[in-house]
Amino acid sequence: MENSELKQKVFSQAQSAKNASQELAVKTTEQKNKMLLAIAQALAENAKDILFHNEIDVQAAKKADISPVLIDRLTLNESRMKAMIQGVKDVAALKDPIGEIVENLKPSEKNLDVKKIRVPLGVIAMIYEARPNVTVDAAALGLKSGNAVILKGGSEAMNSNRILAKIISEAGANAGMPSGAIQFIDTADRNAVNELLALDRFVDLLIPRGSEELVAFIRKNTLIPVLSHGKGLCHTYIDKDADLKMALEIAVNAKCQRPAVCNAMETLLVHKEIADNVLPEICKMYSEEGVEVRGCSLVRKIVPAAKEASEADWSEEYHDKIISIKVVNSIDEAIAHINKYGSQHSDAIVTKDKSAAEKFLAQIDSSGVFVNASTRLHDGSVLGLGCEIGISTQKLHARGVMGIKELTTTKYVVIGNGNIRK
Amino acid sequence: MENSELKQKVFSQAQSAKNASQELAVKTTEQKNKMLLAIAQALAENAKDILFHNEIDVQAAKKADISPVLIDRLTLNESRMKAMIQGVKDVAALKDPIGEIVENLKPSEKNLDVKKIRVPLGVIAMIYEARPNVTVDAAALGLKSGNAVILKGGSEAMNSNRILAKIISEAGANAGMPSGAIQFIDTADRNAVNELLALDRFVDLLIPRGSEELVAFIRKNTLIPVLSHGKGLCHTYIDKDADLKMALEIAVNAKCQRPAVCNAMETLLVHKEIADNVLPEICKMYSEEGVEVRGCSLVRKIVPAAKEASEADWSEEYHDKIISIKVVNSIDEAIAHINKYGSQHSDAIVTKDKSAAEKFLAQIDSSGVFVNASTRLHDGSVLGLGCEIGISTQKLHARGVMGIKELTTTKYVVIGNGNIRK
Repeated sequence: MENSELKQKVFSQAQSAKNASQELAVKTTEQKNKMLLAIAQALAENAKDILFHNEIDVQAAKKADISPVLIDRLTLNESRMKAMIQGVKDVAALKDPIGEIVENLKPSEKNLDVKKIRVPLGVIAMIYEARPNVTVDAAALGLKSGNAVILKGGSEAMNSNRILAKIISEAGANAGMPSGAIQFIDTADRNAVNELLALDRFVDLLIPRGSEELVAFIRKNTLIPVLSHGKGLCHTYIDKDADLKMALEIAVNAKCQRPAVCNAMETLLVHKEIADNVLPEICKMYSEEGVEVRGCSLVRKIVPAAKEASEADWSEEYHDKIISIKVVNSIDEAIAHINKYGSQHSDAIVTKDKSAAEKFLAQIDSSGVFVNASTRLHDGSVLGLGCEIGISTQKLHARGVMGIKELTTTKYVVIGNGNIRK
Repeated sequence: MENSELKQKVFSQAQSAKNASQELAVKTTEQKNKMLLAIAQALAENAKDILFHNEIDVQAAKKADISPVLIDRLTLNESRMKAMIQGVKDVAALKDPIGEIVENLKPSEKNLDVKKIRVPLGVIAMIYEARPNVTVDAAALGLKSGNAVILKGGSEAMNSNRILAKIISEAGANAGMPSGAIQFIDTADRNAVNELLALDRFVDLLIPRGSEELVAFIRKNTLIPVLSHGKGLCHTYIDKDADLKMALEIAVNAKCQRPAVCNAMETLLVHKEIADNVLPEICKMYSEEGVEVRGCSLVRKIVPAAKEASEADWSEEYHDKIISIKVVNSIDEAIAHINKYGSQHSDAIVTKDKSAAEKFLAQIDSSGVFVNASTRLHDGSVLGLGCEIGISTQKLHARGVMGIKELTTTKYVVIGNGNIRK
């Protein structure tokens, strides 16, 4: 596609999404759920066709020597299709956030009714990589929250995303979805992303899902507000008053249950008073799980088999079966270490001492702080949000795990009886 | 100052603010109020000294031929000092937002206590122009919300801001404020702003107050989240079912009560069915108030004295005694006009028809929507926030008038009993 043609195409898609968003904003919960259930049904009816197109992407990826991890993310199969369709039904079952009275204000002015009401953002653009299920997730969550959605998936998943977007758009339209509410950017040309980043007049929120580099690039090159997460450098601190059996279970779970995700632990801190007691057994369990231990000098005195941790290890998000372990002299040292090296994502303390727990909760500046629980629990469905858009390590608008509410904004609705400013 | 010296100075001030913010975050409401009241007292005790230094700035500004409006903003006097000091006491009296349980979640995991708690942001930087009272306001609101504050005021107010910052810092410190919690960037060198904009590792929020150009420059040149307002192009729509007496009062108030502020009306829309009835009297009242009327062709048929509005007038924020008036065929045309030309700030409808009011409230995509009330009421103290940081026309984090809550974020606090991810 010519560059000017691409620019025009992305522009008109974004404009069309903005127009659709105004119609979508006033749809009732019932109307939106009808669209969602129609979409779920259409996905089920067209499952074979979807799998056929997905197979084209998977074969091409295999020929292109793409990594097995990426191919796994790209691949749909019957059980993943089922999960995807169930996901749309789950979104239909979610409580509609729109129209919620967030606050009933008490104005100083008499006879004035002032409410803060939850409303849609308008247009949400998703920029993502290989997973085709993001296409479906994003469309469903966008619809339920009354937002139009612009989808720009990775080129590896082009065929899968194209058929999914087509089925969603058609089924939605038949069920009353405003025309233009779901926009699929149908090109592998990476310039399309740059064009999209310039459209802050139409796009209200950008959600990038992908590598740190992709997210950083997007942040630096747009005036559109961005929601995303950065690093997940999570810690567990085993206090001197910890239940040691519990500490072992949590330390193993936080590291090993799924090491490649953002809420997995990267660094374990252990109070010196219990280091002799706890470290040999923990390191034995890690060894059984195939986890490489890199320890400070005190760790290596107790467990000589441990490798030496360098200064760089305390800042490293391994995303792998590697852990750094440090012995600390006090809870204060643990807190200082976490606030210095951490990524303000998820951090945990294991302790029976209530005042230590309270200190940790108050002083750790992270989006999620955990007492006697695994950082792996920082998840939308586990914590009770019903769905998950991702985990934000930003402090504005959304912090920690994000649910459908984070796809909304508010407005003040003020009803008077001729009230004027004196 | 050498550039490298300036860089180092701003860096160490921001770092010091970050350190102080960790101590400030865990201060109790009582401790914070003690600091605020000590600051108020010190300001009162040093009023003469403050006025003396302010006079130096005012005289310099007069010599430099600075505009009277700016000199007025710069000038302190006894009554303004009193208001400033009362402002600090009012902030002390505000409800402490920190520690509020924003949400009690119902996790799917059993025996897990999950709460979303309100916490400080950390470090807030204010970049502002001539008004010295912003120094005091920002410090007070920052303290109360548990945030460290970096202050960069305009060079015209350098002497005033320096003495104010000194008094605040000393009085605060004597009352237990962590050292470094209030940072005053004591230089007229504009490079200091650029240095500050690069410090996203220390600064959690930037609030610029000043010209559209300043705000746009800051947004384009930082990765720090910015809260600010853009244009205030506010409308009033007089529906065919309006109470005409009320419509006149609101139309005059919204335009004339204080034309230079962001929530003043710029464009009046009038339904064609009542245009003959309402326009002659409204234009007469505007004429009495010295307001220039620029009308569409239909307005000029009814009121020949009106000037002709050009297409550019519908996008113009006059901030002055000028108004553009358009006759519309329907409420739908009014809504479309506002969503097209408006700045999503504050827009009002005057009507007795409840369904028209509901339609307007639902379809106008603005931070504040008003029924039978003046847009001038979009104000923190009027709407019941107790204070005001400004009015945000952004959609993320804060929309519409901002109170002290908007200087905070949240974190998830999760308390388990050995819970792990299955």
